[in-house]
Amino acid sequence: MTAQWWQRACQPVDSAAARQARERQDQLTKPQGALGRLETVVVQLAGWQGKARPQLERVAISVFAGDHGVVAEGVSAFPQAVTGEMLRNFVRGGAAISVLAGQLGATLEVLDLGTVGEQAIDGVQRLALGRGTANLAKAPAMSVEQCRRALQVGADSVARARDAGAQLFIGGEMGIGNTTSACALACALLARPAAELVGRGTGLDDAGLRHKCAVIERSLALHRPYCDAPEASLRRLGGFEIAALCGAYLACAQQGVPALVDGYISSVAALAAVRLNEGCRDWLLFAHRSAEAGHGAVLAALDAEPLLDLGLRLGEGSGAALVVPLLRQACALHDRMATFAEAAVSERDA
Amino acid sequence: MTAQWWQRACQPVDSAAARQARERQDQLTKPQGALGRLETVVVQLAGWQGKARPQLERVAISVFAGDHGVVAEGVSAFPQAVTGEMLRNFVRGGAAISVLAGQLGATLEVLDLGTVGEQAIDGVQRLALGRGTANLAKAPAMSVEQCRRALQVGADSVARARDAGAQLFIGGEMGIGNTTSACALACALLARPAAELVGRGTGLDDAGLRHKCAVIERSLALHRPYCDAPEASLRRLGGFEIAALCGAYLACAQQGVPALVDGYISSVAALAAVRLNEGCRDWLLFAHRSAEAGHGAVLAALDAEPLLDLGLRLGEGSGAALVVPLLRQACALHDRMATFAEAAVSERDA
Repeated sequence: MTAQWWQRACQPVDSAAARQARERQDQLTKPQGALGRLETVVVQLAGWQGKARPQLERVAISVFAGDHGVVAEGVSAFPQAVTGEMLRNFVRGGAAISVLAGQLGATLEVLDLGTVGEQAIDGVQRLALGRGTANLAKAPAMSVEQCRRALQVGADSVARARDAGAQLFIGGEMGIGNTTSACALACALLARPAAELVGRGTGLDDAGLRHKCAVIERSLALHRPYCDAPEASLRRLGGFEIAALCGAYLACAQQGVPALVDGYISSVAALAAVRLNEGCRDWLLFAHRSAEAGHGAVLAALDAEPLLDLGLRLGEGSGAALVVPLLRQACALHDRMATFAEAAVSERDA
Repeated sequence: MTAQWWQRACQPVDSAAARQARERQDQLTKPQGALGRLETVVVQLAGWQGKARPQLERVAISVFAGDHGVVAEGVSAFPQAVTGEMLRNFVRGGAAISVLAGQLGATLEVLDLGTVGEQAIDGVQRLALGRGTANLAKAPAMSVEQCRRALQVGADSVARARDAGAQLFIGGEMGIGNTTSACALACALLARPAAELVGRGTGLDDAGLRHKCAVIERSLALHRPYCDAPEASLRRLGGFEIAALCGAYLACAQQGVPALVDGYISSVAALAAVRLNEGCRDWLLFAHRSAEAGHGAVLAALDAEPLLDLGLRLGEGSGAALVVPLLRQACALHDRMATFAEAAVSERDA
C-alpha cells in the first residue's frame, strides 16, 4: 500500500522562538507565572509562528457540513433538514459562528460536503460527496473514495487559509446526527463502550439517550471487526464533515498553521488525526470543554487541557471563536507590557 | 449607632428585561442552552441594564493601591517598594491592566489610597489615608476613620463611572502584602483557620508559606475577640485597597452598575461587601478562579461560579479585564443571531 499524504512529516515547532518568548514572559512586570495559561499559550504561539512576539490578526474559519444516514435510527432531537437550513443561516450571517467571525474580523468559508438538500446556496461551496453518509448502523458510513475526498477537502481549506496568511485555523462542523457518528468513532479509537462516551447532542431526553447508546453499540458490533486502523474507523463510523476536520488538522500540522480545536465533534476528529499521524498533536490547541458527556475522555486521550469550560455544546467552531480574543489579549500583554528593567520596578527578593 | 451609607437598599434587578432576554435566547438558531454560560450571563446583563438586548461598550476600571504594615513580618516575596513602582507602571501603560484597558477601550483610573512612597505620580490620584496600614499582626490595620474613608473612595469611583455611563465596573488592586491581609479577613468572615485559606501570593516557597500562615494565625488570635461585625473585621484585618473595593461593590449595587469581580483579593472584598449588605450579591459577576489556594472557599461562600479558570494570580483587575471580550461576544450573539423564524430553520422535533 502506498503512503498517503497525511502520513508525511509535520512541521517542527520553532523551539528557539518559544524559548525567547518564555524568557520575555519572565521579565515582564508581574510575578513569574501570574498570567497562568496566557503565558503558556503565548509561548506556544511563538513556537508556531517562529516569532518571539507572536501576533494573531488573521484567523481563518472553515465550517464543514454533512448529513448522516444514521439519523434514520432516530438519534437526533432535530430534523435532518436543519443541516441544509443552517448552511443558509451561516452565509446570511444569522448563525453563532457568523456573528463571531464578523466580530473577530475572521474569514468564514462554508463547505457543504454532502447534505440531503438539493438546492445550491449562494456562498456555500458544494462538494457533493453524497446525499449524506450511509447509515452506519447498517453499513460503512463512507466509501474509501468518499472518506479520502473529505480528508482532502479539509486539507484544501487549510491550504487556502495558509496562502491568505492565516495565523490560526478554526474548523467548525454542522451535521444533524454527528454526535452519534463522533461518539461511535471515539469508541472505536479509544476501545471504550458507548455508555462511557455518549451524550445528549442537541438535547435528547433520557429515553433518547438510551436509544442513541444502543444504536451506537449495535453499530460498533457491526464495524469493530474491520476497524483495525484509524482510517477504517474514520471511514466506517465518521462523517463527511468529521473527515474534513481530520484532514484539516493533519494539513495544519504539515503546513505549519496552528489549529484551534472547538468542541466534542472537533476533538474526535482531532483524535483521529493524531492516530493517523501523531506529529499532528503539536499543532493543536484546544478551545473549550464541551457540555457533551464524552468530551472529557476524548480530551484526556489527547492530553489536552482546553482554555474554557462554559458548558458550550453548539459546534460550528463557535467555542473556538470565543477563545480568539483571549489569545489576542495574551499576545498584546506579551508584546506591550513593560519589563522590570524598563519600568524600574524592583524584582522579587532573592 | 446611626446607619451607614452602605446599609441602604440596593437597586432591584429588572426581572422583566431578564425574562425577555431568556425568551429571545430560546428563539435563536441553536439548541436551547447550547451557548452555556454565555446565555446565563447575557440574561444577567439584561436584568442589570433593564434592556432585553444588553450592550457592553463602556467599561470603567479603577485600580486601588495601598501598602500593608504586615509586610514587616516578612510575608511577601516582593519588596514593599513595588506597590509605588507599579503605580507609575499603571499610568505609563506598562502593566497588564494598562495593556488590557487600552485594548478594551476601557477607562482606567489609578488611586493611591496610602503607600509608603513620598513621591506624587502624575496621573495617580493620591488619597493619603496613611503611609500604608498598621501591622495587623500587632494592631488594627486601620482606624475607624481610615476604613470609612477607604470605603468612600471606592464608592466615589463607582459614582464617577456611573456618571460617565459605564455599563460595567471593574475594581483592581495593588498592594504588596495584600494576600496576607485578604486571607486574614477571609478567615475572620468565614470562621476558618489560616491553613485552609492561605496561599503563596506572588510566589512564596514552602517555608515562606508556613511563616505567612503562622503570622495570619497570630493576627487572628489578636483580633478575633473584637471581630463581632464585618466592619470590624474589615478594619482590623483588611487594607486600604480592600476596603475601597468593598465600598465600590456596595456602591455598584446601590447605584445599579454591575461589578465584575477579579480574583482572590477582590473576592474577599466582595465577601465583606455582601456581609455588610447582602443585597450587594445580586450585582456581582465573578470573572475567574484564581490560582491562589483559598479562592475556592471564598467563591463557595459567595455561591459564585467564575467564568474563567486559567491559573491567573496577578490582580490589578487583570482577570476581570480578560473576561470582557467574552461578555461582549455574548451580547453580540444575543443581538445579532437570527431566530428560527427569521432564518426559516426547523425547530426540534416535538
